[in-house]
Amino acid sequence: MGQGNPFDVAGRDSATGHAFGQSGGADAEHAYAVGIDFGTLSGRALIVRISDGAEVGTAVHEYTHGVMDETLATSGAPLPPEWALQVPSDYVDVLKNAVPKALAASGVPVEQVVGIGTAFTACTVLPTADDGTPLNELEAFRDRPHAYVKLWRHHAAQPHADRINALAHERGEPWINRYGGKLSSEWEFAKGLQLFEEDPETYGRMDHWVEAADWIVWQLTGVYVRNACTAGYKAVRQDGQYPDEDFLSALGSGFGGFVRDKVERPIVDLGERVGSLTAEAAGWTGLPQGIAVCAGNVDAHVTAPAARVVEPGRMLAVMGTSTCHVMSSDVLAGDVPGMCGVVDGGIVPGLWGYEAGQSGVGDIFAWFVDHSVPPYVYDEAERAGVGVHELLTDQASRLAVGEAGLVALDWHSGNRSVLVDHELSGLIVGTTLATQPHEVYRTLLEATAFGTRRIIAGFEDSGVPVNELVIAGGLLKNELLMQIYADVTGKALSIIDSEQGPALGSAMHAAVAAGAYPDIHAAAHAMGKAREAVYTPDEDAAAAYDELYAEYERLHDHFGQGENNVMRRLKAMRRRVVSA
Amino acid sequence: MGQGNPFDVAGRDSATGHAFGQSGGADAEHAYAVGIDFGTLSGRALIVRISDGAEVGTAVHEYTHGVMDETLATSGAPLPPEWALQVPSDYVDVLKNAVPKALAASGVPVEQVVGIGTAFTACTVLPTADDGTPLNELEAFRDRPHAYVKLWRHHAAQPHADRINALAHERGEPWINRYGGKLSSEWEFAKGLQLFEEDPETYGRMDHWVEAADWIVWQLTGVYVRNACTAGYKAVRQDGQYPDEDFLSALGSGFGGFVRDKVERPIVDLGERVGSLTAEAAGWTGLPQGIAVCAGNVDAHVTAPAARVVEPGRMLAVMGTSTCHVMSSDVLAGDVPGMCGVVDGGIVPGLWGYEAGQSGVGDIFAWFVDHSVPPYVYDEAERAGVGVHELLTDQASRLAVGEAGLVALDWHSGNRSVLVDHELSGLIVGTTLATQPHEVYRTLLEATAFGTRRIIAGFEDSGVPVNELVIAGGLLKNELLMQIYADVTGKALSIIDSEQGPALGSAMHAAVAAGAYPDIHAAAHAMGKAREAVYTPDEDAAAAYDELYAEYERLHDHFGQGENNVMRRLKAMRRRVVSA
Repeated sequence: MGQGNPFDVAGRDSATGHAFGQSGGADAEHAYAVGIDFGTLSGRALIVRISDGAEVGTAVHEYTHGVMDETLATSGAPLPPEWALQVPSDYVDVLKNAVPKALAASGVPVEQVVGIGTAFTACTVLPTADDGTPLNELEAFRDRPHAYVKLWRHHAAQPHADRINALAHERGEPWINRYGGKLSSEWEFAKGLQLFEEDPETYGRMDHWVEAADWIVWQLTGVYVRNACTAGYKAVRQDGQYPDEDFLSALGSGFGGFVRDKVERPIVDLGERVGSLTAEAAGWTGLPQGIAVCAGNVDAHVTAPAARVVEPGRMLAVMGTSTCHVMSSDVLAGDVPGMCGVVDGGIVPGLWGYEAGQSGVGDIFAWFVDHSVPPYVYDEAERAGVGVHELLTDQASRLAVGEAGLVALDWHSGNRSVLVDHELSGLIVGTTLATQPHEVYRTLLEATAFGTRRIIAGFEDSGVPVNELVIAGGLLKNELLMQIYADVTGKALSIIDSEQGPALGSAMHAAVAAGAYPDIHAAAHAMGKAREAVYTPDEDAAAAYDELYAEYERLHDHFGQGENNVMRRLKAMRRRVVSA
Repeated sequence: MGQGNPFDVAGRDSATGHAFGQSGGADAEHAYAVGIDFGTLSGRALIVRISDGAEVGTAVHEYTHGVMDETLATSGAPLPPEWALQVPSDYVDVLKNAVPKALAASGVPVEQVVGIGTAFTACTVLPTADDGTPLNELEAFRDRPHAYVKLWRHHAAQPHADRINALAHERGEPWINRYGGKLSSEWEFAKGLQLFEEDPETYGRMDHWVEAADWIVWQLTGVYVRNACTAGYKAVRQDGQYPDEDFLSALGSGFGGFVRDKVERPIVDLGERVGSLTAEAAGWTGLPQGIAVCAGNVDAHVTAPAARVVEPGRMLAVMGTSTCHVMSSDVLAGDVPGMCGVVDGGIVPGLWGYEAGQSGVGDIFAWFVDHSVPPYVYDEAERAGVGVHELLTDQASRLAVGEAGLVALDWHSGNRSVLVDHELSGLIVGTTLATQPHEVYRTLLEATAFGTRRIIAGFEDSGVPVNELVIAGGLLKNELLMQIYADVTGKALSIIDSEQGPALGSAMHAAVAAGAYPDIHAAAHAMGKAREAVYTPDEDAAAAYDELYAEYERLHDHFGQGENNVMRRLKAMRRRVVSA
């Protein structure tokens, strides 16, 4: 015990000559935290210096089983459409492999590591026995798909989500408005109801329905608590309450005890110390037993402080295959349209955490390049020695705003915010026989920027000011895209100055948990990394985009708000035809 | 003289033992007619047996100057955007080259040729001196672009067309409704007004403003008359009148005499004998001097009898890069929406000829394959040893109706009928990250079929029945496309049984002019070639297409009829930006 306390570390490390107290009383200059980012296909460990956030070593470990979306690895049995499972031991393998490698790469003496923090995809959820053993690790359950982790992108619980939402509106449940009027099929209740109905035996054996974000902390500490973030965003905890037993019973006889029996746990704030690294986990990771382990967290949300987004009014957009928008505010607005969730302390303790999102961004660009770009563009990229995205971006950057004569809706994966409707789909208008690939490419970039502007407008119209946009995620490398976002939103864009936002943010929370900083605000100030106002709106371009955005908005409302439900009808027809 | 009379031919050919009188009095079995089809890039001659329409020899001659749309061939001077010119001597070269070659290929003794007929693109129009010499052949005018032929797809007179249309509506000119409320920038008045305003000297020198369809007949016969078809469709002749001098003067001071001085000529019906082949033209072609030459005609219109489309209620769709719909009717409906024109005897003497069209069909498919199909499809086509169109068609044919989950508007080249709006553009809705190229391809095929259905609905709603659809043109080879048209329209599809519809139709009109048949009906019966009801609607597919067509129609009306003018605004913005 006690090794996890940075005071202890400093005490043992007196040879450095640095006194404690420089940063909230700890010798942060020679103390390090480990952040671990559990992604969809791999986990990454990052060693971070607590004094200034310097990233001194990192390593990645790929999950052995990846995503099981066609067959179950053990039995080889086929999985139904829309399923996506993972194997919990893959996460432990990240602890065993990536952490020691990162530490070795950093050259940091292990005794200088004072805390460990984690970030996870969410809602990624698994059934466990009372001691945390995943049910799939019980011999009797190893061939049952429902005994495995349901990854965030397991979408087979849509009918269950539909029933939950219909019932919530029918009964006028107050919590439904905190989620833009709709719970997602990705979240704990829809996935739990699917498990309950499709595999009663596994449901019966399950003692806990655990967010992977909390499960990994449980493995590190032996302590099972729920973090405020996923409890609020994914398990529908609002004002200290979950959906009640009456509601659950109305969903299915026998489901009434779901929250009481399988979900409810003590809640910990983000950055709170859950416990100390166990001897077993110390063995896995090579880290000192007893160091601080902080509350579980979600990859997008934990990135906010990493980009110094901790004050009200600063919106972080984590832009990758999809975009997650997170923002803290001292204002609780009940009716921000299409919110994924408003959660007390959901991002930063003491503030309302807002989450919104665009379900398709980078993956729309990737789909376009893979399926709609002709050979002559590939050939030209090859001759120029660049990638296709790079070539198209370069060509697109030479177009003036409006020159392509096109406008698109970015709904190829549906619309998360502000419409919360996954039955929506993509649209492009203005195509002529002269339309060229780089023009369509730019139009798709712009469409996603319009989507973000629409989200910001939803916040602002609801009385939640958005003063600044901060960008994290892989897409920030595309300078044209960034400039388009600045021009379209009319806001200065700051950029996270780390390629490992989730891991860095996790390490920052670990530093708080270890006592190196009094709170995440202080940690963000010292360790967070953002380049401020890297892109500023060009006045002419912004004016031109106002015109195009008006077109986007008109199409958005026409196709998204019921004037013409053609997208829903086309999807319904497709399903009917395919199933026939 | 007299050689052109089939009686003479038969008289000279008594060795055959066949008496005249089998078909309207002429020995059609051993008489032949020549049809010449002047296309956009080349001219084709076809030797046709008059008794049964057998095609016994053909040859093509490419125009030396092709289409001049970037620079003028003589001076090398650049042409402005949207210009498209041709050189008249290229047409004469077709007479000199293709006709003798076709005759040689046929093995037909030259003295058995009794008539010659022509079909031309339209409105393709040129300024000439009084004797028919094209002004570009005068030394003083050879470097003036306005002295050349303005090809049908010369689109630089759009501002002039706009003014003509605005003025016509302002003054309530009665003729404007015979053209769906809009004259095209492609037609004689817009092009003539452009010439008048931009090059007064050439305009002043010009004695005649001549449709190429009539000019080529003038070259063959020495007689300049106007055929009823282009006079009606392209020169706005209605009920024996052209737009009047008041109207023309209001367009521009000095333009009032345009019709009187440059346009007006005697009118001849289609199939009427204009005159006899001159000695000079006999020298060019190698055909007997004095044979019958019939009135000029237009490629699409002349194809109707070739496909046996001469009765009311049979609609011919000539499907190529664009589609032209022509149909004769005994009904005059003033208000068929989006008509390109209703002309008395415009297709078949004695019936009202209706013309409608879709500005983009095959060229939309070609654009898609060229600019939106990824390398993996090209690679697969190569491995399979087929073309990309063929591969995509094959893949698309395996989709059920509605399976793609997409619907598109076929307006990449604007909409000719029924909206008559070239500011419209393409749209596709329903795209997802799972959307594949063959799904989009099928969707585009379907969109053009919906466009045709919308045109037919316009006829039927106006009281002009359409009982049957007959298809000609290059696209009829695509069996999937044909079946889609049958399923979408709910009509049986007949197919022309000749690959040379315009040349065959021209030869048929020549046969009538030569007296071999009393009228084009009789010629169509004997020489026309169609396979009847080759494609019939599949009941289930037709029902499913009713659903998709309802979506198309909703989008069509929303974007085409003013509810959302986004397409026009995008084009306007593009022009503004490009010109800035």
